Amino acid sequence: MFNGIITPMVTPLQSDNLSLDIANTNKLINHIISGGVHGLFILGTTGEATSLSYKTRIQLINEACNIVNNRIPVFVGISDTTIEESVHLAEIAKEAGAKAVVAAPPFYYGLGQIELYKYYCRLADQLPLPLFLYNMPSHTKINIEIDTVLKLAQHDNIIGLKDSSANIVYYQKLCYLLKNIDNFSLLVGPEEVTSQTVIMGGHGGVNGGSNMFPKLYVQLYKATLARDFERVHELQSLVMEVSTKIYNLGSFGSSYLKGMKAGLFTLNLIEHNIAPPFDCFDEKEMTAIATNIKALKSKIDSALS
Amino acid sequence: MFNGIITPMVTPLQSDNLSLDIANTNKLINHIISGGVHGLFILGTTGEATSLSYKTRIQLINEACNIVNNRIPVFVGISDTTIEESVHLAEIAKEAGAKAVVAAPPFYYGLGQIELYKYYCRLADQLPLPLFLYNMPSHTKINIEIDTVLKLAQHDNIIGLKDSSANIVYYQKLCYLLKNIDNFSLLVGPEEVTSQTVIMGGHGGVNGGSNMFPKLYVQLYKATLARDFERVHELQSLVMEVSTKIYNLGSFGSSYLKGMKAGLFTLNLIEHNIAPPFDCFDEKEMTAIATNIKALKSKIDSALS
Amino acid sequence: MFNGIITPMVTPLQSDNLSLDIANTNKLINHIISGGVHGLFILGTTGEATSLSYKTRIQLINEACNIVNNRIPVFVGISDTTIEESVHLAEIAKEAGAKAVVAAPPFYYGLGQIELYKYYCRLADQLPLPLFLYNMPSHTKINIEIDTVLKLAQHDNIIGLKDSSANIVYYQKLCYLLKNIDNFSLLVGPEEVTSQTVIMGGHGGVNGGSNMFPKLYVQLYKATLARDFERVHELQSLVMEVSTKIYNLGSFGSSYLKGMKAGLFTLNLIEHNIAPPFDCFDEKEMTAIATNIKALKSKIDSALS
Amino acid sequence: MFNGIITPMVTPLQSDNLSLDIANTNKLINHIISGGVHGLFILGTTGEATSLSYKTRIQLINEACNIVNNRIPVFVGISDTTIEESVHLAEIAKEAGAKAVVAAPPFYYGLGQIELYKYYCRLADQLPLPLFLYNMPSHTKINIEIDTVLKLAQHDNIIGLKDSSANIVYYQKLCYLLKNIDNFSLLVGPEEVTSQTVIMGGHGGVNGGSNMFPKLYVQLYKATLARDFERVHELQSLVMEVSTKIYNLGSFGSSYLKGMKAGLFTLNLIEHNIAPPFDCFDEKEMTAIATNIKALKSKIDSALS
Repeated sequence: MFNGIITPMVTPLQSDNLSLDIANTNKLINHIISGGVHGLFILGTTGEATSLSYKTRIQLINEACNIVNNRIPVFVGISDTTIEESVHLAEIAKEAGAKAVVAAPPFYYGLGQIELYKYYCRLADQLPLPLFLYNMPSHTKINIEIDTVLKLAQHDNIIGLKDSSANIVYYQKLCYLLKNIDNFSLLVGPEEVTSQTVIMGGHGGVNGGSNMFPKLYVQLYKATLARDFERVHELQSLVMEVSTKIYNLGSFGSSYLKGMKAGLFTLNLIEHNIAPPFDCFDEKEMTAIATNIKALKSKIDSALS
Repeated sequence: MFNGIITPMVTPLQSDNLSLDIANTNKLINHIISGGVHGLFILGTTGEATSLSYKTRIQLINEACNIVNNRIPVFVGISDTTIEESVHLAEIAKEAGAKAVVAAPPFYYGLGQIELYKYYCRLADQLPLPLFLYNMPSHTKINIEIDTVLKLAQHDNIIGLKDSSANIVYYQKLCYLLKNIDNFSLLVGPEEVTSQTVIMGGHGGVNGGSNMFPKLYVQLYKATLARDFERVHELQSLVMEVSTKIYNLGSFGSSYLKGMKAGLFTLNLIEHNIAPPFDCFDEKEMTAIATNIKALKSKIDSALS
Repeated sequence: MFNGIITPMVTPLQSDNLSLDIANTNKLINHIISGGVHGLFILGTTGEATSLSYKTRIQLINEACNIVNNRIPVFVGISDTTIEESVHLAEIAKEAGAKAVVAAPPFYYGLGQIELYKYYCRLADQLPLPLFLYNMPSHTKINIEIDTVLKLAQHDNIIGLKDSSANIVYYQKLCYLLKNIDNFSLLVGPEEVTSQTVIMGGHGGVNGGSNMFPKLYVQLYKATLARDFERVHELQSLVMEVSTKIYNLGSFGSSYLKGMKAGLFTLNLIEHNIAPPFDCFDEKEMTAIATNIKALKSKIDSALS
Repeated sequence: MFNGIITPMVTPLQSDNLSLDIANTNKLINHIISGGVHGLFILGTTGEATSLSYKTRIQLINEACNIVNNRIPVFVGISDTTIEESVHLAEIAKEAGAKAVVAAPPFYYGLGQIELYKYYCRLADQLPLPLFLYNMPSHTKINIEIDTVLKLAQHDNIIGLKDSSANIVYYQKLCYLLKNIDNFSLLVGPEEVTSQTVIMGGHGGVNGGSNMFPKLYVQLYKATLARDFERVHELQSLVMEVSTKIYNLGSFGSSYLKGMKAGLFTLNLIEHNIAPPFDCFDEKEMTAIATNIKALKSKIDSALS
């Protein structure tokens, strides 16, 4: 049963925007772990998994597991449209020492809920590691409906759900309906609401911002568990500042990813490279991010000291 | 500044499914007020406003304000595609003694955010009562984006937002960005999450279930304000039981409204009539609702006694 | 059985953007009829029906029928969220001498297909005039699915469908599946494709551009019936020029309506007023429209002479 | 410049639902070519490309090009979320003797039009074969807007567009706006409307049904070019019968693909296997397909004899 703050790691890339930057992968992972997070999730949406070649994905699995070296559990994204490729990635993850895999619904064809249920059963049956469902309707075009989650939660090899729908009624109903099911973790995607969902009965959050400021999200989680609402309020304000000042520039849905990579570059944790179909922010946006992140870092350091 | 639990009242109809049932309107309003709610919202989505003739809408405004007789504030829905009709309803509401009006975006044509902003300004300029914005993208096809809300919150005659999007990141950002703006109320639509949004800094909820069980929602709100999380947990479970056992039958999006009216009929508060384009639940669904509501009523009475 | 080109008339408004401009209504109707169109459709989407007060809608029905004076059939839009208001408008239309009414699905609540089917039956049962279904999913959020159309086509008082979905597979299937049903007219919404759909077996089109250039659309229709493809090609190019040079300015979905009203103003057929939630084009866009429309008028006059 | 009927080939699979069935690939390709089609498109949506492992995709490219042996041009789908994998597939296609490649927009992340434009330029720059754009918004979540197509049509290595949006106004505008651009082919996806779009100025269609009945679609295309509308009408009716009796069973969007594979199995052209996330039709649906396809085959044989 997984609880706490899990970092959906960005993938540090070289200047060809394709190849893994191993040195910075090492630096970033150690930075994240030093902040006390409870798990590392590689090859998720924040990790640009679907934009990376299989060769790079496999390399990242091996390098990351090696660097982490069992200090914290590693989760590996295997979302794909091809079941064979998902299973293959899971086998590599297993061998490298990862603890679980994470799969969004196949995202090319439109599916019905029954088709989705059967697909997940078939996938989970074949996987050598336990599976987290990953609800991401804005990207996959399908919501894993509540009844489907409830049925899949009965599968021995399905151990949780990461919900990135931002639909709070959906999440609240799942907390309520799954409360008597042991060994099923409910993790929330949007980092802005981890605290609230933990109060609801959720088990933690997958917080992109913890690539940059891992301690902030861990401390917010701990303050929430302790019901220290003054501290929650103080830290939540900083989380909202990250959200509104780093992720909201630019004109497209990609502003989150571009802002995150620009922020990590400013913090000297990665090079400023991003895989197609995206391009990095240009100079004007970069300047804004740099200004914002420096001010934020100083505030956050001061709040956490 | 409005806080607390506001009941979006269902509209009791006669057996022609068109005409106002005044006797039950009286009975229902007194039932709701006896539960201690902080406001009454007539002619909203739960009130089937857009399905009622203007004659019936006007009659309801007058009767409801008369029955309430200033015991609690009355809010009147004026959502329409025609600005003149919205203004006309607001004038009647003002004369009848209502405290504010509530308007969703015009819902036939697709609008851009700038068009929406101008529309709301033009509407608010003409209204004789303060205006609540009503974000309901599933019905209106448009989300009132955060930047638009922030700009509209500067208008003297716009005093709040009811958000029924169920998007928690949107709500959390609004709580954060509006926290220094006085006299702007943030109310949440889905009743399943009032407690969590109040912890975030929201000001209350528009809770359909308080037509049936007003005390339950009021007590949950009060327990939340008191940070009595044991009590919150106990009452939230009952709220979730209402949500999953009364609103989730039937095959369509209309299950919420049909379940609510069936529940109120079982509780002997209204006749079992609904306006086109809907029909009441049939006997099979009705039997399930009746069974569920009786069990629920007994649990809720016991928890609140 | 209706065939041919029907003009979805814009509503000429006074400078308050609310009141009917009767003088220009007279001028516009006579202009349209002089072009040889086969019917006049008032209070449709192009007619801003949902933005007009009921008083104005009723006034337009009476004035338009009076001006037309049975020279061509008049169709009246009764789309509404309230069945009583739809029926009331139909009664006025009947008395004024209109030949049929047109109703899109109720557009506030989301409906299931069975709910939609029942709604249309209930509506058609009550109407004093025959009914055209109006498929407009971009505005109503619901597609009238093929099976639903086939069932509704059995209703004695439902005589046709106007399809504005732009989905050609849908239209082609309807042409095929309805080909043996007498007395059911299939009319297409987007004016860019009337010719193609008539070749498919459709019965005509509801062509917004025929407010400006009625002869152009009528001649294209006649050339299509005559299978004079050289002429079709020549006239279709002009139709496409109207589409790309008049309807595509501005940033929003409203560019069609705004461009049409700006074009009609340039042609001296109406004043430049539009009902909320929209505003007229500003000067820059207006100048572009004026230039384009003058060049177009000269080309069209020359092609039709 | 490509014209005519192109078959988007289904991928014959072995009973593991994963591996290529080479014997039936050979049989199917020869069947298709014998019908006179003008091109073969492998690894498209109908070909389940995104459900197949890269190993299987590469095997199919090599086998298909070898079997076709330059009798007709082969087009290879390279749609992917990873640009490197797309380029790699294109290199294999080039070496195998394919004539062009086809790519839908990357389909995981949501993109803006500018991002999409840049992506296609970057892809086309790297490809060793000319590129067809593939508009498939229902699957990719993004429409390649008209302005984006016009800009991309300037790229030397982009030679056409396959449009599967079913939006006829979009297609009509493209025909009109691209009419003076040489060497750019406009092909339509839905087979129900190839004839109409060719009359509009389109260059042909990608017709799934030509896996089963290649001659039917070729003859319809030729009758359209000859403006033999009596023959067009006769053959179009048969095309519509395929569409409504083979592709419309079952409850999901997958009914097209499942119906096609069931039909081909009945015609003894492939085994009845389909890749996850789908399952084949069950016995009840299979029986219906078998009955329908036999009746259809007899009608089609008779019409073409």
